[in-house]
Amino acid sequence: MKTRFIALLTDFGEKDFFVPSLKAVIAGINPEARTIDITHEVPSFDIRAAGFILFSCYRFFPKGTVFLAVVDPGVASGRPILLAETKKYFFIAPDNGLLTLPLKREEIATLREVNQSRFWLTEETTTFEARDRMAPVAAWLTHGLAPDEFGPEVKTYKRLKIKEPVRDSSEIAGEVLYQDKFGNLMTNIPFSMFPSDKPSKAKPGMVLHLGKKQIDRLVVSYAEVKDKRPFFLANSQGLIEVAVREGSAASALQAKPGDPVRIRFER
Amino acid sequence: MKTRFIALLTDFGEKDFFVPSLKAVIAGINPEARTIDITHEVPSFDIRAAGFILFSCYRFFPKGTVFLAVVDPGVASGRPILLAETKKYFFIAPDNGLLTLPLKREEIATLREVNQSRFWLTEETTTFEARDRMAPVAAWLTHGLAPDEFGPEVKTYKRLKIKEPVRDSSEIAGEVLYQDKFGNLMTNIPFSMFPSDKPSKAKPGMVLHLGKKQIDRLVVSYAEVKDKRPFFLANSQGLIEVAVREGSAASALQAKPGDPVRIRFER
Amino acid sequence: MKTRFIALLTDFGEKDFFVPSLKAVIAGINPEARTIDITHEVPSFDIRAAGFILFSCYRFFPKGTVFLAVVDPGVASGRPILLAETKKYFFIAPDNGLLTLPLKREEIATLREVNQSRFWLTEETTTFEARDRMAPVAAWLTHGLAPDEFGPEVKTYKRLKIKEPVRDSSEIAGEVLYQDKFGNLMTNIPFSMFPSDKPSKAKPGMVLHLGKKQIDRLVVSYAEVKDKRPFFLANSQGLIEVAVREGSAASALQAKPGDPVRIRFER
Repeated sequence: MKTRFIALLTDFGEKDFFVPSLKAVIAGINPEARTIDITHEVPSFDIRAAGFILFSCYRFFPKGTVFLAVVDPGVASGRPILLAETKKYFFIAPDNGLLTLPLKREEIATLREVNQSRFWLTEETTTFEARDRMAPVAAWLTHGLAPDEFGPEVKTYKRLKIKEPVRDSSEIAGEVLYQDKFGNLMTNIPFSMFPSDKPSKAKPGMVLHLGKKQIDRLVVSYAEVKDKRPFFLANSQGLIEVAVREGSAASALQAKPGDPVRIRFER
Repeated sequence: MKTRFIALLTDFGEKDFFVPSLKAVIAGINPEARTIDITHEVPSFDIRAAGFILFSCYRFFPKGTVFLAVVDPGVASGRPILLAETKKYFFIAPDNGLLTLPLKREEIATLREVNQSRFWLTEETTTFEARDRMAPVAAWLTHGLAPDEFGPEVKTYKRLKIKEPVRDSSEIAGEVLYQDKFGNLMTNIPFSMFPSDKPSKAKPGMVLHLGKKQIDRLVVSYAEVKDKRPFFLANSQGLIEVAVREGSAASALQAKPGDPVRIRFER
Repeated sequence: MKTRFIALLTDFGEKDFFVPSLKAVIAGINPEARTIDITHEVPSFDIRAAGFILFSCYRFFPKGTVFLAVVDPGVASGRPILLAETKKYFFIAPDNGLLTLPLKREEIATLREVNQSRFWLTEETTTFEARDRMAPVAAWLTHGLAPDEFGPEVKTYKRLKIKEPVRDSSEIAGEVLYQDKFGNLMTNIPFSMFPSDKPSKAKPGMVLHLGKKQIDRLVVSYAEVKDKRPFFLANSQGLIEVAVREGSAASALQAKPGDPVRIRFER
C-alpha cells in the first residue's frame, strides 16, 4: 500500500511556524510526498472536534493516504504515538482518543506504538513531537516502509466515550455533534434511524426539539426553504442537521455542540 | 487543452471538512492534478465578492487551469451547474451569476450544463454538490476528457447586474467594489477612464468624493505617502483604489463596498 | 542547487486574490515548482514577526528551497528587492530588515539586488511587486537559473536591531519575542545561556520575572504540569517560553511581545 498523500489535521492554527515545519520535514524526507491540509483550525486541545472532522472526510481520500492528526494536550508526557493501519489507510496520532470515530468504522489491520527513534529528528525530549517524531514517520511511510519498522504492535488504544442516539417507539434522542462555519448544527442522529425505508423523502409529522424550540420542517435540500425559520434535513454525512437558509442555526436557536436533541414522531 | 491545475474558490471556510473533501475527491480521480487555493474565506453566500476575487486573479494562472468556484446558496435547488470553456480556461460553478465578471472578459468557446451523473459520487440529491458533482468533473477534465462528456451546450447563463462607472465632462461616477484585508477600498473605476493618455503619472486637480470625505491626493505608489491621510492610486488591477499608508481606508473613511464614489476633474 | 520548493511567507491574508496570484505566476513559469505556505497571517506590515517566523522554520526545509518573504510597507518606493544565496537556500525579500534573523545564522554566499526586468511581468511601476517581480524570480530560480541572472551583487542589506539577552552573575535579562496561537510567550533567551551543562534537565531555584509576576516552575514538557499556574520551559526552538497548561500565558500574565523578561538564579 504505497502512497504519496499525507493529510494533515491539527489545532496549530495557520499564523505560526508549526504547520510549515511539518511540511518542511516531510518534503525533506520525501520530495514526492503530497500534503493535503484537512484543517489546522480545530479549537485548541479539542480532541473530540478533531475526531469528528477527520471522520467526516477521511473516506474520500485515495487508498493509501497517511492521516497525520495532531491535537495533543499531552505532548511529551510519555503518552504513546499511535500508528493504525487499516485496509485502506494509515492513521498517525497521539493515543488520546482522537482516532475513536474513524477507527470505529474502519477495519484495523495492525495497531502500533511508534517508538523507533531512528526515524525521529531528535532522540531528546521535545515539545514539538508532531515535527520531530510524527511527521518523519508519515513521510517514511510514503516511501513504502512497512509499518513494523516504526514500533511494536499494541493491543488497544484510547477511545473516547461516544454518545449514541437512542430510539424508542415515539422519539429518537441524540445531541448536537458539531457546528460548522455557516452555523449549521449537525446532530449524531443518522437519517437511517428514521421510521421509514425511503431515505430520500421527507416525513411529515416529525418535530425536532432543541433547547426550548420546536422545529417541524424536515426538507430534502437547503434551497427549498424560502424563509428564515429553522428546518432540519439529512446532510451530506447522512446525519440530521438543523439549519437556517443563508443564516446561522446556532445563533437563531442559541444552540451548540453537546446540546440534547429529540425528534418526536407524531402519529 | 490538457492541464493539471485546479484552482478552488469557495465560501466554505477552512475550519471544517468541506475543502479537504473536495481535494480528496480530486486526488482520488487524478493523483497528478494539482489544486491551488484561491480563497475559501469569501463571505458566506456572497456571490458578488466571489466573482470579483476570481476576476482579479484568474488570468495569471497557466493555460488550461480549471477554476472550480462554489458559493452556492441554491445548492440542491435544481439550479444548473455551469461548465464554461474559454480560449484558455475551464470554469465550473453554480449558474447563479458568480462567473459574470470573468466570462465578460473571456471569449467563451462553449457553455454547458453539467448533468452527466456517471461522473458524480452519487446520483441522489445531495446537499454537498461541490464534493459529489463539481469536484469530480474538475478532476476528470484534468484527465483530458472533453467538455462535451459532461453535458449539453446551453445558450445562456445567469449574469449579475454590474454597475459600470459613468463619465461626463466634469466627473466619473462609480462605486466601491471590494475591501481587501488591509482595508484598501477598490473602486470599479479603471484608471484608463481618466482624461489623459499618460497612465503612469498622477494628475493634479482631481478630487475623489467618498461619503462626506474629499481626497485630493492621487499618487503612483503607497510608499510615496508619508502621513496617515487617505489617498488614491491606480492599483495592480488598473482600478482606482483608496488607501491609507499602513492603515485601513475603510476604517478611516467609514466606507464599504457599494458606497458611491465620484472623481471630479478641476480645471 | 536546483530545487522545486518555494516557501511563501506574507502578510497578505487568505481572503483576497493576493496569495493565489503569486502561486498562479509561479505555476505558469514552472509547473513543476511546489509552493509551501509558511503563513500569510503575519500581522500587517510587521517585519519583525515575519522575520521571527521565517527564522523558526526555514532550516527544516530541503536544501535548495527558495524562500519568498513579503511584508513590504515600502512597496514601489524604490527600496531594493534582495536575493540572498546561502549554502543551502535562496531568500527573496524586500530589503527592509525582514531577513535579519535568518541571514544572521546562515553563511551568505552572495547577496544581490534583483533588478533585471526581463523576468518581471511588467516594467511599469507596480503596487504588487510580489506578483509582478518577486514571484517570477522565485519561479525562474526553480528552473535552475543562476542568481547572477537576476541582478548585481550588493555589499550590504538592511538589518533590524535585534535585542540580545544579557547575562550577569545573578540573572539573564531578555524580552518576549513572540506570542503563538496558543498564547505561549517565546522569549529571546536561549536555554543554552543557563548556568549548567545539562540542557535537558530543569534547574531548581530559578525565578522568571515577567511584568509584576514571578514564575518559579521550570519544567521539561507542557504535560508534566497539572494545574493552571504559569511555568516556563525550553521550547522546540531552544528558547525559554512561558506557558499555561491548555491555556494562554499571554492572557494569564497580561504580557506581549516586547515586554522585558528577567530570569534570576537563586543560590
